[in-house]
This record gives sequence, C-alpha cells and structure tokens, in this order.
Amino acid sequence: MSELLTFPASSAAVLESRLPPPVLTDASPSRPFVTLTFATSLDSSLSLAPGVRTRLSGPGSKAMTHYLRSRHAAILIGVSTLLADSPALNCRISGAASQPRPIVVDPQLRWTPDPMDKVLEVARLSNGLAPFVLTGVDAQSLPAANVALLEQHGGKYIHVPATPSGPHGRMRFDWRAVFDALLSEGLSSVMVEGGGQIINSLLDPTFHSLIDSVIVTIAPTWLGQGGVVVSPDRIRDSAGVPVPAARLSEVSWHPFGEDVVLCGKLHT
Amino acid sequence: MSELLTFPASSAAVLESRLPPPVLTDASPSRPFVTLTFATSLDSSLSLAPGVRTRLSGPGSKAMTHYLRSRHAAILIGVSTLLADSPALNCRISGAASQPRPIVVDPQLRWTPDPMDKVLEVARLSNGLAPFVLTGVDAQSLPAANVALLEQHGGKYIHVPATPSGPHGRMRFDWRAVFDALLSEGLSSVMVEGGGQIINSLLDPTFHSLIDSVIVTIAPTWLGQGGVVVSPDRIRDSAGVPVPAARLSEVSWHPFGEDVVLCGKLHT
Repeated sequence: MSELLTFPASSAAVLESRLPPPVLTDASPSRPFVTLTFATSLDSSLSLAPGVRTRLSGPGSKAMTHYLRSRHAAILIGVSTLLADSPALNCRISGAASQPRPIVVDPQLRWTPDPMDKVLEVARLSNGLAPFVLTGVDAQSLPAANVALLEQHGGKYIHVPATPSGPHGRMRFDWRAVFDALLSEGLSSVMVEGGGQIINSLLDPTFHSLIDSVIVTIAPTWLGQGGVVVSPDRIRDSAGVPVPAARLSEVSWHPFGEDVVLCGKLHT
Repeated sequence: MSELLTFPASSAAVLESRLPPPVLTDASPSRPFVTLTFATSLDSSLSLAPGVRTRLSGPGSKAMTHYLRSRHAAILIGVSTLLADSPALNCRISGAASQPRPIVVDPQLRWTPDPMDKVLEVARLSNGLAPFVLTGVDAQSLPAANVALLEQHGGKYIHVPATPSGPHGRMRFDWRAVFDALLSEGLSSVMVEGGGQIINSLLDPTFHSLIDSVIVTIAPTWLGQGGVVVSPDRIRDSAGVPVPAARLSEVSWHPFGEDVVLCGKLHT
C-alpha cells in the first residue's frame, strides 16, 4: 500500500468555504455539488503531450488533491486520462473516513477493464472503490466479460444518453445528464479532475451554472508549445466579436510552496 | 494630460528585491538589468486576438506597470504591439523622477512614425521620451523623413544586426545584440513589456541568462482558444523527449486585487 499523505489543518481551513458542506443542508438537492480542479503550467498545460504524465506541482499539491478527494463522494475523469495514466483514483490522505467513488466518462466504451488496472487493484485491496463507468452504449451491447469484471470489484456500467458533437462527430454526454446520473446513485458531490477535454468542455458557458467551485493549482513553469492545454472554445458576442470565455468570481489566491492555488466560482 | 496613478508603498516594498537597484553597484556592467513583465489570462493569453486590446487585469495592475516603468531606464516593446495599440509608453505614476526611454524592436522597419502616434505626442508634450527604434536596416537606407521626425522629437534609429530566422525567415535580432545596443546608449536597465513574439523568444533557454527578473500578472479569466498566447517553443532533451521549456526559481506569489503577481528568476 502507498504511503499516507498528510495535509495541514491550516491549509484545509483555507479551502473549507470552497468545498461541499460536510453535512448536506439540502435533503433533496437537484444536482451534486461539483468541484472542478486541476493543475497547470503558466502556459495552461496539463502535460507535455497527450498520455505523458508530467510532474507539475510540488508535493504539497499532491496532498491537497487527496484531501479534496476525501471531501467528495465521487471523483470524475475522462476515459483518455484513465487509458493514459492508469491512475489509482483512491484517496491516500491520512484519516480519510471513506473512499470516493471513481467515475469514468466513457461515452463510446474505449476502456476494457483489466484486473491489472490500478483502479481495480486498489478496489481488490480495499484501498479504494471500483469505478462506475458512464457510457452511451446500451446495456445489452456491453461485453459480458467487462460487466462481470467490473461488478466483481464492486463497480458497474451506467447508461447515459450520448449524442454526436464537435467537428469529428464524437459521441458526447450532456453534463446535465452526467450529474443527474450521479445524483441517482446517491452521490451528492463530485470532484472533476480532468483531462483536458473534460475541463475545456465544462468551462463552456453553457455549463457554468452546474459548477459550484473551481480550484486550480498553477506551477511556475512554462511547458512550451504542443502540450495538453486548458483553454475553452472561443466565445463571440452577438456582433461576432471574441469575448472572454469564462471569468471567476469570489476569487482567492493561496501561495502553496512554489505553486499558487486559485479558488473561485464560475457563476454568481 | 492623463491622470496620475498611485502605487501603494506596501506593494512597492514587495517588489523591491525584484527590481534594478536604485543606485548601480557595478560601475561598468556587461549588460543592462533586464526585467520581463506581462499580464496574461489563466490560459496564458495576452489578448483575445492580434491587435485587439484586451482589458485583463484590474486597476491596481495598471498602477504597478507604471511604477515598474519608473524604476527602469528603458521600456521595450515589439513593433507589432506599437502598430496594434499605439501606446503612450510613458510613465504616469505620481512622483516619478524621470521618464523611461521607449525602445521599439523593429528589425524590418515596419513602423512609419507619424506625428499623431501617441508615443510622439507625449514626447512633444514633455510627458514622455521619444523612442529609440532598433532596426536591421542600414542607416543610409532609412527614409530621411522618418529619421527627421524621430530626431525632432528626441528619438532616433539605432542599427542592430538582424538575421533571418524561424519558419518564415523573418529578420530577427539576437537578444545579446539588443541589450548591447541599450548599454551603449547608457541605458542600464530595461523592462521588456511585450508582445507575444518578444516574450516567447526571450523565454527560450538560450536567453535565460540575460534576464534578471520576471514579473507576471495573472487574471482569473480564460480568454478561450485563438488568443495571443505566451508559450515558448517546445524544448526536447537529447533523446527527443519534450521537457519543460522554462521554470522560475526564487518564486513568490502576491495576490493583488482579483489578480496574482508572480515574481521569479529564469536562471539561478
């Protein structure tokens, strides 16, 4: 088992107002509390290239990520990140009461679960939960072996309607349908971690009202051109003039080792 | 005349160690003290599109820029920024002892000075100095009218050797030659302000040893794709693997209204 991480109480206090309340005040919320969080370079890159894991932020930032995981019912990533990194998707903070549920956004079923995948390994060792995989593929079309393997580990497939979108007509979910599915599973909060496509699509103004909190770590590095960049699609006003795509409100900046942590909201 | 700006002494104190010393300790320096400074969005854009002036940072940030100008002998911009913005390039901070010398990097002589250009207007009104224009064009090939107009205002052309470089074979300077030219003019410090091409070329590792201080303001906004992006060219190691292009050391972050100011060094 990996070593446990510790996150100072003073740092946790700074983030408290940005996190889902420990006890939910709303007995029947209309959607989960959604936190969008990621780490970039100064040139807004998540990594040097697709599939290349890039150490950007310092050790304190890793502990923060795991602390944030401990404060959410679910953590969500896109299938590209799962395939590229094979992440454990568990919470390794010291004193965590429970593990978050990993959610994999996989509209076209690109992931074939394998017992060697880290996310399944940690589930077998009871160091984490097996993922719920959101897919646009109908239940009867799912490979039986995949379904069985996931379910043996405590995970499952959940059908979410997908429609072709974007220049390549790729199957995509509407974020409202994704968050509805999580709420139906009793998951009242979710931390969206990446990767680039997931983050950029959530930064589109269409979805700002669904996001409760944004927490971005910035490392004092320029990765250079060609990285996996966080930058939403261009927005134009009614006259066709480009306007800023998104602005945070209720902003606070917290220096954190060599990095800075930016907290804010996308809607007011 | 524009209103004067004020910059709080407490903020100035935070920046002091990042600036050229008020009294030079080195009687014969080998190059000017070089400060690289600019403001970007979270997605590392200087503006929404080339030639589009984009209000990114708050009013405090504008005062900071003018305070920084008051602490340098020269301020340097690329000709594209001059043509796009027609900036005044003077210092409007309250209590400034002297005006910085504007330096325009114009290897191929794209700028034709006009009495209506703001930078010449402020020189006529004694609210700023006329620019020194660095160009690769030989003295005898310079249009006489341009030379006369610049010199009437107290500016001049300075010849710097330029060589074709980059994918389009554009004439460019070596930064060493630029800084040598400034030192020859008795300019012991320079604040490099932009635009994108200038900044990206200075962030290339070749030139890190020439830069004494980096001051970046980041606004909590995503401009969206298609902006003028600060991101240096990709760097690869000897095995061809991409590596980070630049990393700051001696880093400090200073929240400043809704923005953050990042200070650091490119070489150690």
